Amino acid sequence: METLEFTVATGRGSTVVDLTPNAEQFCSGKGDGLISVFVPHATAGVAIIEVGAGSDRDLMTAIDELLPAAPDRWIHEHGTPGHGRDHVLPAFISPSVTVPVVDGRIALGTWQSIVLVDTNVDNPNRSVRFTFISG
Amino acid sequence: METLEFTVATGRGSTVVDLTPNAEQFCSGKGDGLISVFVPHATAGVAIIEVGAGSDRDLMTAIDELLPAAPDRWIHEHGTPGHGRDHVLPAFISPSVTVPVVDGRIALGTWQSIVLVDTNVDNPNRSVRFTFISG
Amino acid sequence: METLEFTVATGRGSTVVDLTPNAEQFCSGKGDGLISVFVPHATAGVAIIEVGAGSDRDLMTAIDELLPAAPDRWIHEHGTPGHGRDHVLPAFISPSVTVPVVDGRIALGTWQSIVLVDTNVDNPNRSVRFTFISG
Repeated sequence: METLEFTVATGRGSTVVDLTPNAEQFCSGKGDGLISVFVPHATAGVAIIEVGAGSDRDLMTAIDELLPAAPDRWIHEHGTPGHGRDHVLPAFISPSVTVPVVDGRIALGTWQSIVLVDTNVDNPNRSVRFTFISG
Repeated sequence: METLEFTVATGRGSTVVDLTPNAEQFCSGKGDGLISVFVPHATAGVAIIEVGAGSDRDLMTAIDELLPAAPDRWIHEHGTPGHGRDHVLPAFISPSVTVPVVDGRIALGTWQSIVLVDTNVDNPNRSVRFTFISG
Repeated sequence: METLEFTVATGRGSTVVDLTPNAEQFCSGKGDGLISVFVPHATAGVAIIEVGAGSDRDLMTAIDELLPAAPDRWIHEHGTPGHGRDHVLPAFISPSVTVPVVDGRIALGTWQSIVLVDTNVDNPNRSVRFTFISG
């Protein structure tokens, strides 16, 4: 099994970071299998969406509406006010996704990207783990 | 690794399509492992729910409430008005799911079906990829 | 492939049950690979969240707001009034998650736990299946 953990700079705001180029490079030459993309954090998720046409910002709008960062709404009270919602996020946007790899190429559709979804403004760096399971 | 991509007709409305019979046939005789069910589209998801007692329609109601297809709500503006919400959907209903396979049989519970969730009315056909990883 | 199905007591209320100790024990000594955590039920999900600081209760609050257990809201009408929402839950909180395992240890972050999310008050016991795919 090949596995790689690396750090992504996410800054001090809610953000969507495209991990696709890193994942493609990781899988290159590895043949057939599955790639697991996993973030070892309790306040981030991994999604597969289109980027570059506004859907990443639309996602943040949806998250803000469905899980508002209101200070008095959440029991969890560490960190920046409203941070409690960041801890609910991974139940809906899982920190784990797997994607098939065929002959070293991730079988994504034309408009799909693998992205890190991070609403946590208290943590400017995030770890990401790629794992390749040979088929 | 065995992998199969095929096309599903989804028509011009929001729909839930049961993929379980196809997945069962794909896994038959393959022994122990994992099946990955993946849709290479940025406006569809894969879910595991009950079908046949109204829950598929309940799911569509929930999606319409949580991610309304309102034209002025989303930045993404290609396609039918309101289509932007279809691009947010896969962050919440992932296009990828894996299920254990034991002796060629998918280890689903009695009431579980693997379904394609497609709210995109602009695309009447969808691709689905099954991949079997031997355990 | 090694796979294990076991029963968890969830009682007669909505609950979050930490499966991490069971999963760690299951993976111990198994080397590198992926663990699949799967619940064979149509009214439960598996999530990776922090437990112990209120986020499990925050998750239940969010579920109650996003998928209200209102009797007249859902088509599915078996079981306790409002139970229809339990059948929509797994589309948003999938019954399946995979996590990398490195040298027999699940590669979870410090604050992550693998939990069963069960809003179904009609079923006091749940099955869980762990599967280890060697890498």
